[in-house]
Amino acid sequence: MNIVLIGSGNVATHLGLAFKDVGFKIIQVYSRTLVNAKLLAKKLDTFFCADLSFLTSNGDLYVIAVKDAAISDVSKKIRLYNKNQLLVHTSGTLDITILSKSALNFGVIYPLQTLSKNIPVNMRKVPLCIEANNKKNEKILLSMAKKISNQVYLIDSEKRKILHLSAVFASNFTNLLYSIAEDLLKQYDLPFDLLKPLIRETTDKIMLNKPAEVQTGPAIRNDLLIIKKHLQKLKFNKEYQKIYKILSEAIRNNLKQ
Amino acid sequence: MNIVLIGSGNVATHLGLAFKDVGFKIIQVYSRTLVNAKLLAKKLDTFFCADLSFLTSNGDLYVIAVKDAAISDVSKKIRLYNKNQLLVHTSGTLDITILSKSALNFGVIYPLQTLSKNIPVNMRKVPLCIEANNKKNEKILLSMAKKISNQVYLIDSEKRKILHLSAVFASNFTNLLYSIAEDLLKQYDLPFDLLKPLIRETTDKIMLNKPAEVQTGPAIRNDLLIIKKHLQKLKFNKEYQKIYKILSEAIRNNLKQ
Repeated sequence: MNIVLIGSGNVATHLGLAFKDVGFKIIQVYSRTLVNAKLLAKKLDTFFCADLSFLTSNGDLYVIAVKDAAISDVSKKIRLYNKNQLLVHTSGTLDITILSKSALNFGVIYPLQTLSKNIPVNMRKVPLCIEANNKKNEKILLSMAKKISNQVYLIDSEKRKILHLSAVFASNFTNLLYSIAEDLLKQYDLPFDLLKPLIRETTDKIMLNKPAEVQTGPAIRNDLLIIKKHLQKLKFNKEYQKIYKILSEAIRNNLKQ
Repeated sequence: MNIVLIGSGNVATHLGLAFKDVGFKIIQVYSRTLVNAKLLAKKLDTFFCADLSFLTSNGDLYVIAVKDAAISDVSKKIRLYNKNQLLVHTSGTLDITILSKSALNFGVIYPLQTLSKNIPVNMRKVPLCIEANNKKNEKILLSMAKKISNQVYLIDSEKRKILHLSAVFASNFTNLLYSIAEDLLKQYDLPFDLLKPLIRETTDKIMLNKPAEVQTGPAIRNDLLIIKKHLQKLKFNKEYQKIYKILSEAIRNNLKQ
């Protein structure tokens, strides 16, 4: 299986490295930014281009890993009508059918993980969500995915979109809350390190328990006095105040259910 | 040092067990609910009462670990005017001075951790925030705290309140987000387990990086199309929709700074 990577960002980098590590050959990297294409190609010991008209036709699997907003444009410029070629995208949100005009065989490999180019990740523990336009391609993608990850799932477009949405809550939004906490501490010369054991324990708890069942804090205790004091403390930042209010209300509403 | 525990909840339980483990003697447990007082007293191999007028006067350290709203009432019923007796509360939010009429010597031991009675915790890794009404008592509390935890800090009431507030963001609110994510997945028959590697990685990242610097997701990419699609998917729950909107806006505002 010869792989062509279309994209040079976080997902392209980690998928490329993982496929290379288990023996697949990456034969070309495309990025619209030449320097990025070159950089990733160097890591993967392969060729690169910055123009889709120079895309090699010798690939077996073409992986589109560009940002969601660009996938439609990129896929319009790709035409893989050789019946042994397979085209996939890696988006959590876009339908599989967005590729239907670009290839006879198409699918999705969606890594359910927050990936940053420069932070190493153990791909074996990254859930890979697979979808394909027919059973044969499904089998091919499942088999390839299982070579790089221990957690491979068959997930259709509708379910994948919900997974992505729930990941925004569980990862992107929690990270925002961490940065708000850090900002609050900074204003009083307190180190963020103080909170780290608490953050660890909070996630440790939900590995074994349902989150709703281990909720703690003033809102679940319905401690209106503390909530009022906290809102006063947050007066200096209306946005933090608004976030505190709506999340506390949501916890109290869950309580009522 | 003979310790008297006033309270039988999450904090009283874990502090009591930790102090007992390093050789302090817990001589009495009070709870307004007799059965709870009895239960914790049994764990700590000691006596119990459910009426503050039966509180022993033989204690050296009295630890109030009842919920914030009850501390004021409880402290009014306690009078420790022996100059060798020390009274502390364990609240993140209440001022040290709330104890000034109840004892000559008073202070605070605030464990910065989410504690649940039935979930074991390694107290050595729990940050303990100490405050006292004078240097002598500060020294006593620091020394006792260091016997049960490796992370002991001297933190005044103002800073402690900020710590508690930031902990609400970093722990209570993130737990709410986990429960929303689980709820979304459940509606499409998807297991919460799928998100666990992502949740792990999200917290692993901020152990070594500033949260604001590792923010990922549609909001930080300013991917308005995806944000719009997500808001549509959340139509069935106005509260989730509102939370998605305000947290995405906050991420985009941070971006501008």
